[in-house]
Amino acid sequence: MEVVVNAAMSVDGKLSSRERRQIAISGPADFDRVDALRAESDAVMVGVGTVLADDPSLTVDDAGRKQERTDAGQPANPARVVADSRIRTSPDARVLDDAAETYLLVSKVAPADFVTQMREAGATVIQAGEDRVDLEAALSELESHGIETLMVEGGGEIIASLFEAGLVDQLSVFVGSLVIGGRNAPTLADGDGFVEEFSELTLESVEQVDDGVLLSYTC
Amino acid sequence: MEVVVNAAMSVDGKLSSRERRQIAISGPADFDRVDALRAESDAVMVGVGTVLADDPSLTVDDAGRKQERTDAGQPANPARVVADSRIRTSPDARVLDDAAETYLLVSKVAPADFVTQMREAGATVIQAGEDRVDLEAALSELESHGIETLMVEGGGEIIASLFEAGLVDQLSVFVGSLVIGGRNAPTLADGDGFVEEFSELTLESVEQVDDGVLLSYTC
Repeated sequence: MEVVVNAAMSVDGKLSSRERRQIAISGPADFDRVDALRAESDAVMVGVGTVLADDPSLTVDDAGRKQERTDAGQPANPARVVADSRIRTSPDARVLDDAAETYLLVSKVAPADFVTQMREAGATVIQAGEDRVDLEAALSELESHGIETLMVEGGGEIIASLFEAGLVDQLSVFVGSLVIGGRNAPTLADGDGFVEEFSELTLESVEQVDDGVLLSYTC
Repeated sequence: MEVVVNAAMSVDGKLSSRERRQIAISGPADFDRVDALRAESDAVMVGVGTVLADDPSLTVDDAGRKQERTDAGQPANPARVVADSRIRTSPDARVLDDAAETYLLVSKVAPADFVTQMREAGATVIQAGEDRVDLEAALSELESHGIETLMVEGGGEIIASLFEAGLVDQLSVFVGSLVIGGRNAPTLADGDGFVEEFSELTLESVEQVDDGVLLSYTC
């Protein structure tokens, strides 16, 4: 499976403010690029923190791109994947609507009634890992469902977990021309963080987009 | 006064790991650029956190650049400035050696014996602000000592304070090709952070340096 992480951050590495309120970091050209990336992916993944903070739909915006997908025999939107170790997804979350298929990744300690509730809300529940989601096992399970290209849109906890597990193949980050600040604001990669053997990347391209810069790496 | 912030961070905006151990983020070309920037500055400022974590000398490395400074009637090294609201600077800190003049910025609650100890260790103590250093007043006092160009090398707390006070004129940030991660690792701009009216910057140039990228902004 090809795992592509894509995010927009401020110059100081923040995905949003300390209040986790969504901030317009990028502009129309970057939104369009992200929409194209989604349309090219089999699935789009976020952590549950992003679902709670932003309630995103994670669907493709451009009608032409949806048409191209259905013309090619694919669903109009890529599947959605939510990693939810602490079973915080609400059955009313937008990612559970019928615009696309949705996979919920939980650990084996997820209560049966939560799993049932999520299945009734339309999700395919994948249980992997004892008390936290085992991402390697979960992604391999997703692969058996035909997901070969997985786009990850954040937040900082799931991105950090993927880097820690060595599962990221590509990283694209739009650096917006603003400072958000805040020692408690979410960053591109949170988690516990590395203290040695940091994830080394290879810078593949640098491109000015909107009023910021898009950095693309292979991992 | 022209305030130029310069820092090296990981792709995820971290200045070091959660253990605050110094990490080689940039390479020889960026070190040389930073050395040239120091040589062009009247003073180099850091927060006390950086003094405690790294014990830097903040002096110019290249002999030719020192020579140019002395030929121009300047001291071989720019002055050093430490912002120390919580009076944590040790008299043994390398920034207090006799390689350059050193200014210590403290608030008015700094105990007289601490001030005396720092003066005996060779520092010029500037008291500004009631219980925290008032950076605007302190920088204006530095200006009266002839400091017209101030380079700020971090860490994330002093950089955030300068942005909050609207005192930054230029920002140069080298983005190294690695992920450090860590929700508690220091970032380019910590502090409380903005929740609205973020510091908007203008991207002036993008340059590949070493295996990373140098982003330069005006503020």
